[in-house]
Amino acid sequence: MSPLIINLAPTGMVPMPTQTPYVPINPKDIAEVALRCAELGASMIHIHARAEDGTPSTSASIFADIISKIRGKNSDLIITATTSGRMVKDVEDRAASLYLDKDLRPDMASLTLGSMNFAKDASVNSPAAIIRLAEIMLERGIKPELEVFDLGMVNFAKILIEKGLLAPPYYFNILLGNPSTAQANMLHIAIIVNELPPNSIWSLAGIGRFQKTANALGVVIGDGVRVGVEDNIWFDDDRTNLASNEMLVERVVKQSKALGRSIATPTEVRQRLGITER
Amino acid sequence: MSPLIINLAPTGMVPMPTQTPYVPINPKDIAEVALRCAELGASMIHIHARAEDGTPSTSASIFADIISKIRGKNSDLIITATTSGRMVKDVEDRAASLYLDKDLRPDMASLTLGSMNFAKDASVNSPAAIIRLAEIMLERGIKPELEVFDLGMVNFAKILIEKGLLAPPYYFNILLGNPSTAQANMLHIAIIVNELPPNSIWSLAGIGRFQKTANALGVVIGDGVRVGVEDNIWFDDDRTNLASNEMLVERVVKQSKALGRSIATPTEVRQRLGITER
Repeated sequence: MSPLIINLAPTGMVPMPTQTPYVPINPKDIAEVALRCAELGASMIHIHARAEDGTPSTSASIFADIISKIRGKNSDLIITATTSGRMVKDVEDRAASLYLDKDLRPDMASLTLGSMNFAKDASVNSPAAIIRLAEIMLERGIKPELEVFDLGMVNFAKILIEKGLLAPPYYFNILLGNPSTAQANMLHIAIIVNELPPNSIWSLAGIGRFQKTANALGVVIGDGVRVGVEDNIWFDDDRTNLASNEMLVERVVKQSKALGRSIATPTEVRQRLGITER
Repeated sequence: MSPLIINLAPTGMVPMPTQTPYVPINPKDIAEVALRCAELGASMIHIHARAEDGTPSTSASIFADIISKIRGKNSDLIITATTSGRMVKDVEDRAASLYLDKDLRPDMASLTLGSMNFAKDASVNSPAAIIRLAEIMLERGIKPELEVFDLGMVNFAKILIEKGLLAPPYYFNILLGNPSTAQANMLHIAIIVNELPPNSIWSLAGIGRFQKTANALGVVIGDGVRVGVEDNIWFDDDRTNLASNEMLVERVVKQSKALGRSIATPTEVRQRLGITER
């Protein structure tokens, strides 16, 4: 089996320091968590920027700060910038970090393939917004991290492929366990994976208490996992122990090693995904 | 096999008289189409209101006009009012027709179970909006027409059931063929139907060119079909013949009769769904 791709999502838009001390908020903390988790086995980091008060931000300068702090010490680690529309509507605003140049340009960027509901709010990604973000990524040489929450989102990836907006191989992140989208069970995973276009590389992620199961399945059957405090602040099902990003990475590494499966290095992942080495 | 439930969707929000002469826009035309299609076999009509210029409207008085014109001549036909949020955001505005009283109260109302993309725009139904609409329907004794476009929307129906907001039997309309949601193929239908809660009654609808296939499958394997100019203005795959609502109803009736399957009357459907007779 191919080495496991570990994609770390340490921050997200929701967890706040009042809920857990383990969510890194400022660029220094995000970079330190990324660097430590890279040593533990993460080959990618999916970053969100936060303002000083902890609220989500699309500020290119904060993204730049995070990226330079990581690359100053580790230039291999693959950096993915979020373009989430969950709290910001304007597409160019969502794309601000994609215009960073040279050493600050992210390697990848998230591209959610449709509109959907999270537990409390809607996440709106109109077809036009998705197409525009895909165009910017293509122009800028940034590889999309294709986020799939339900069956039909894979269909929209195929439409983007037909339009020439995505280049193979395709990296899909399948995020399971939201109340209004696909669930973290074998049947839902099976049908979504069955729909993926040829030349797809895919990871499994789980929201909230489904992170553990989705990650464990990703270790066994997927090309990789996305893991981190962004998706669940708890380490255990009983919600008694808060998780650190390091603990979450270590858990999937242990599972993978117990299976005799090696962990992909950033260089290996760059080769598989066709991302230029730095 | 149980008699086929034919749910007519003659108008919707999108087709305009400039595109087809067969979309009824004003209350008189909508009522006349409903009454003719009821004679052909429709047991339900899913109504949208339009303003005089043809644009979608949530005006309770237009809904009242349509409903009174239908019931003045046919009090059996089951009337479903849309609560679509595709063009209107405010929940109480979307629910305006649900507050109509006595002889004007709709029997059913549409309840889309999540946010999603149509071909060009997003349709936003936040969890809070869906819950509020379900509460109003429950209070007013209006049966939800549960609209499912993708796998996860069935999961949200289960959450509404757990919250006590839906009463069995559940009537699901499974709408297939949008670019960003489930497709009109057997695998997608199979997994969505497999997820439905016990005591579900379900119809198949298809958007655009998928209407014909989805309806034909509904005749063979479903409890019913939703059919009408709302979903496709064309009768044929080559898009050379415009469809009238009557032609679309007649096509499914012919298919059903060729299978030896009878067509449900409004009275039968009221009994199966637990909707009070008028």
